[in-house]
Amino acid sequence: MTSVKSLFSPVEADLDLLTKNLQQLIGARHPILSAAAEHLFGAGGKRLRPAIVLLVSRGTMPEQGITPRHRRLAEITEMIHTASLVHDDVVDESETRRNVPTVNSFFGNRIAVLAGDFLFAQSSWYLANLDNLQVVKLLSEVIRDFAEGEIRQGLNRFDASLTFDAYLEKSYYKTASLMANSAKAAGVLSGVSEEMAEGLYQYGRHLGLAFQIVDDILDFTGTNEILGKPAGSDLVSGNLTAPVLYALEEKPYIATLIEREFAQAGDLEQALDLISASSGIEQSRDLAKYHSQQAIANLALLKPSDCTQTLRELAEYILTRLY
Amino acid sequence: MTSVKSLFSPVEADLDLLTKNLQQLIGARHPILSAAAEHLFGAGGKRLRPAIVLLVSRGTMPEQGITPRHRRLAEITEMIHTASLVHDDVVDESETRRNVPTVNSFFGNRIAVLAGDFLFAQSSWYLANLDNLQVVKLLSEVIRDFAEGEIRQGLNRFDASLTFDAYLEKSYYKTASLMANSAKAAGVLSGVSEEMAEGLYQYGRHLGLAFQIVDDILDFTGTNEILGKPAGSDLVSGNLTAPVLYALEEKPYIATLIEREFAQAGDLEQALDLISASSGIEQSRDLAKYHSQQAIANLALLKPSDCTQTLRELAEYILTRLY
Repeated sequence: MTSVKSLFSPVEADLDLLTKNLQQLIGARHPILSAAAEHLFGAGGKRLRPAIVLLVSRGTMPEQGITPRHRRLAEITEMIHTASLVHDDVVDESETRRNVPTVNSFFGNRIAVLAGDFLFAQSSWYLANLDNLQVVKLLSEVIRDFAEGEIRQGLNRFDASLTFDAYLEKSYYKTASLMANSAKAAGVLSGVSEEMAEGLYQYGRHLGLAFQIVDDILDFTGTNEILGKPAGSDLVSGNLTAPVLYALEEKPYIATLIEREFAQAGDLEQALDLISASSGIEQSRDLAKYHSQQAIANLALLKPSDCTQTLRELAEYILTRLY
Repeated sequence: MTSVKSLFSPVEADLDLLTKNLQQLIGARHPILSAAAEHLFGAGGKRLRPAIVLLVSRGTMPEQGITPRHRRLAEITEMIHTASLVHDDVVDESETRRNVPTVNSFFGNRIAVLAGDFLFAQSSWYLANLDNLQVVKLLSEVIRDFAEGEIRQGLNRFDASLTFDAYLEKSYYKTASLMANSAKAAGVLSGVSEEMAEGLYQYGRHLGLAFQIVDDILDFTGTNEILGKPAGSDLVSGNLTAPVLYALEEKPYIATLIEREFAQAGDLEQALDLISASSGIEQSRDLAKYHSQQAIANLALLKPSDCTQTLRELAEYILTRLY
């Protein structure tokens, strides 16, 4: 199994520079935020989102090379992503993320709200200063989608009648929108054709959906250690994902357990057993695979290069997290 | 004493439309937010910030009239302002604002963080869709300044060595930046000269500083009923404002009380007495008056009209809150 680090080797130097820049951009002026910046942009993160932007940037500029504006776009995507994580953890009252204490649990809600606002504000400002109205619109859409996704997740808690379309839409808002719009934005900065820009958008969208579905599967099949949170924690909090939605079709009794919010002793265990006994996990795996393949198919217009190849391998790599 | 309502009569119909639009823009799609929207954009607000944008818009378009983009800009300024209030109240753990329970105390931190994020996100999105890069930059600056102002206020708590410049800078970030940049943006949408755009910026900046200084004075001289919060509450929370900074020059012992965070019995009362006995309030009034006059002086380039006259009266009206 390839590690993410070796996978990203064509943009490894770019990613190291990005990490250094981010710590400086956020932490330099504010001691109050520098600890949070260290915490947020430290070595732990996989930097998947900026890696996609950097790979698309290099892949669409094979001769000219990457520009400072491509780099800034990559930084902006990581800032927006991090801001959304910080506020999500406040909203969900999460204590840890990837086995590391969250900003709210470590520094308190006050700093967490401020740090998230500051990151969103900085990203809006850097975005405007990319001087490209189309890119501003693409990334503003992402910020709006995050808020929309978090609100929908809140609205649909413990709603066993949630449709599969609504689940995919929420996954788009929460995960795929950033990958889709930032991949497209990198192409726009490179001056690609409209057709290629649309291909990059679809690559990011399918990759993001595959990534989210895999995450949702791992919430059932992963161990505490891998996840950095207890298995089944989505279900406990009423966040209904692909494995549950498929399982509900075969085992309708799960709906009863969900709707009473697992209030009776043994409810949660029974729901988890019913999901295990269904084909929910298997069908979810097939769905993730489908979106991974669709992502790859949308790269057809890109010229062959190290970076294009890595974008392809990334879509495959995401699935290997399942095995 | 003129009421704000009669003062804003040239844009009263515009403001009523704006309120209706805001409630619809925010509340329509999300039941979870509609109660908060009603709460936030209900009849209580003074709608000072959108009124400035509407007055500048009409004042700079005397023949052609106001455009849908001017109206949208006014809505955006109110959204940004409201978003910042909602998050400020989370950060400061405020229970009431203008005698009304805050979103966090009424709906909880979860909804308050989400509602603020959603408002910021919506405003970024509407902003990008005004299709004017200069306006996007001006308002992005505001969002960044809010975050900066709130962080600085946190950093400088109970710091009796705070300089007057640092106080004015913080006031600019928290209050004047929105008025300055949105007044200028309204002019930019009208296609005014660079010189007039700068005049509008300076009008908003001085108006905002005057407004903030008056607010800071009222925190000492106002009654609980007028303020909707206990008098002296800025001082209690370590937020040092104009009256205190002037008083410190005459009564240096106040520094001792501030630095031990009013920990001993009678400390706060003693500090309030020392401030009353100083010329801090009077000097602050003079400063507010100076900024009000500077605001008016910067309107010189605008053609005479109802709206221009109202902008002038607004700068005077702000001072009448003191008497």
